Amino acid sequence: MGLPLKHLFDLPDGMIYLDGNSLGPLPSATPTRIEKTLRSEWGAHLITGWNVDGWMAAPTKVGDRVGRLIGAEPGTTVLGDTLSIKVHQALSAALTLRPDRRVILSDTGNFPSDLYMAQGLIQTLNRGHDLRTVAPERVEDAITPEVAAVLLTHVDYRTGRRHDIARLTQAAHAAGAVMIWDLAHSAGAIPVDFAASHAEFAVGCTYKYLNAGPGAPAFISVRPDVVGRIDPALSGWLGHEAPFAFDPDYRPGFGIERMRVGTPPILQIAALEAALDIWDRVDMAELDAARVALSEQFIAEVEARCPDLTLASPRDPAARGSQVAFRFAEGYAAMQALIDRRVIGDFRAPDIMRFGITPLYLDADDIVAAVDVLEDVLVNRLWDRPEYLTRKAVT
Amino acid sequence: MGLPLKHLFDLPDGMIYLDGNSLGPLPSATPTRIEKTLRSEWGAHLITGWNVDGWMAAPTKVGDRVGRLIGAEPGTTVLGDTLSIKVHQALSAALTLRPDRRVILSDTGNFPSDLYMAQGLIQTLNRGHDLRTVAPERVEDAITPEVAAVLLTHVDYRTGRRHDIARLTQAAHAAGAVMIWDLAHSAGAIPVDFAASHAEFAVGCTYKYLNAGPGAPAFISVRPDVVGRIDPALSGWLGHEAPFAFDPDYRPGFGIERMRVGTPPILQIAALEAALDIWDRVDMAELDAARVALSEQFIAEVEARCPDLTLASPRDPAARGSQVAFRFAEGYAAMQALIDRRVIGDFRAPDIMRFGITPLYLDADDIVAAVDVLEDVLVNRLWDRPEYLTRKAVT
Repeated sequence: MGLPLKHLFDLPDGMIYLDGNSLGPLPSATPTRIEKTLRSEWGAHLITGWNVDGWMAAPTKVGDRVGRLIGAEPGTTVLGDTLSIKVHQALSAALTLRPDRRVILSDTGNFPSDLYMAQGLIQTLNRGHDLRTVAPERVEDAITPEVAAVLLTHVDYRTGRRHDIARLTQAAHAAGAVMIWDLAHSAGAIPVDFAASHAEFAVGCTYKYLNAGPGAPAFISVRPDVVGRIDPALSGWLGHEAPFAFDPDYRPGFGIERMRVGTPPILQIAALEAALDIWDRVDMAELDAARVALSEQFIAEVEARCPDLTLASPRDPAARGSQVAFRFAEGYAAMQALIDRRVIGDFRAPDIMRFGITPLYLDADDIVAAVDVLEDVLVNRLWDRPEYLTRKAVT
Repeated sequence: MGLPLKHLFDLPDGMIYLDGNSLGPLPSATPTRIEKTLRSEWGAHLITGWNVDGWMAAPTKVGDRVGRLIGAEPGTTVLGDTLSIKVHQALSAALTLRPDRRVILSDTGNFPSDLYMAQGLIQTLNRGHDLRTVAPERVEDAITPEVAAVLLTHVDYRTGRRHDIARLTQAAHAAGAVMIWDLAHSAGAIPVDFAASHAEFAVGCTYKYLNAGPGAPAFISVRPDVVGRIDPALSGWLGHEAPFAFDPDYRPGFGIERMRVGTPPILQIAALEAALDIWDRVDMAELDAARVALSEQFIAEVEARCPDLTLASPRDPAARGSQVAFRFAEGYAAMQALIDRRVIGDFRAPDIMRFGITPLYLDADDIVAAVDVLEDVLVNRLWDRPEYLTRKAVT
């Protein structure tokens, strides 16, 4: 194969894109794939597209292609909704699997939406559940026998710090807790073996490293021996055993089908399919080796040339995801200056400059060129302009 | 303006499409609009599209364009998720607004997913709520003081029978209940005045009469004096007061913003925008007059030429939505025979043949041509072929 596969993406000329951890770039094949869905499927077949074009089966069929990238067995992954909804599905199911326990354990570095969804669910349930958050490095010790569910994001959205899926899942299970992994910053970023971990749930999104576009569908994977015991809280018709029987009573569908809710977003799934055609050509071990090489190069260049920046990510590449973060007190303004010079990263409060290292479309020359600009911005204080301090952030 | 506006749609040659109540056809402008979003927004701007292309504001901005079609005030409608999720949001909020009541009232003709979502919520709450369904014509009498929320679909998905929004909302409020209207078969079908009804919630989808494509986003409208009292059960980060502050605790956003959950589906919203450009040219009173004329013509032709079919829809056009349904014992096979002859309607068990009458892209000649084929199918028993009885249904 050979990485990078830059020629498969439409990257703007002169831009070095280090924000694929937030929104991946446009694959060159996506517009044609969408045009086909619009004209040859929807336009030509209209309602019959649900069958003849396979739309109805797409959430599980395309879901399996995502599942492969996180080590999920075929038939255990389904697409749909947003990641927040998938967190709700996993967590509500986990709590019903442990009806006598009242603690949801997470960490203070978790992505806020995961915590928010837990808070909303706790309020809805109104049965005295408690969301307990501890520092990421304290999670293992905090998995006590009153914990019903452990809800963790594998890779920290700010620092890129990575949890040990195998070890923490084992600790959760040793304490009788259900394990939920949010793989938002893992899918397509680093090798994951969900099935081997024996965790009950994995959830994630497809618009970051998978390059499926803004608002691309989320996914949920459920361990096969667990899914049959779930009575879905979000019991929509497409998770019904027989959606087109139009029975008045909900009966959960077979296996992972029951985690479907409403009508699937066919245009967004078409964009995901085009993106996955690239992923079908990628060997995850080779991707990971390239990630390590580029990340180590980036860290070495920044530390040599930009001494005001302090590494916020773990030093050990095996303890990181596919992003590298540096702390800098003027990081917000510095990032705006970088963006103006076509080096695109992003910023997370209070002082974190994030750089996504994505070997699918970045090479060693890009890393050098990005640090050239970063050095220029820092050495010449190009960030010190009033508009950089007040400009509305990119997300 | 002048209806129909056929030239604004890409309708397949020789097809008469009477299933816009299930999935609307492709507007001619949609592929170009999507191409723009792909290449000039996502491809060119990548992550910065969330600001420079207005993606982050799209759910409320485009939501208002949908709101106009159902008589919602500006600032009271937001797009996102699927209709099932929006039902969950409205119903969970309604029940917290009436904490001392335990009955959800609906009718036996409601779309099953609405009932399923209520059942799932009741199970999640586990506080003795009861989903009570009565025949549609018995709803008003069944609105008693123990009813917390009345959850009704305005237009019946099978027969097209229409509830009286003003009267039933008044009855709900007189009994102290919260009113939720599902406008799936109303938005873009018939005039609706949500604001004047004073109902608390309206929800609906945009892939039917609005022609936004398969998997298009749902919407929710909330009465302005009510929305501030809602503590969302699905408390996702984009419903947070300050999503990009990344606070650990959820605080609901201002007004209708709090009904957002996760990342909005930008490609599907772009398709909706193209579809709404057509709706911006439509006067709802003119549309309704055309609906009545075409529907009356269709009924008269069918009854004159196809005596085996029995009208299942109300005889009074003011008591119907924009579809006409007939009962026929062999309706399933007959619909397959029609579809093979390029007249596209659909079938709902046990014996209902549904025909969507959509004045945006149908005229009187289409109605005659459709009934010509229907008459041929019935008089010559063209439906009486084994494969029509066993073929998998279109949805």
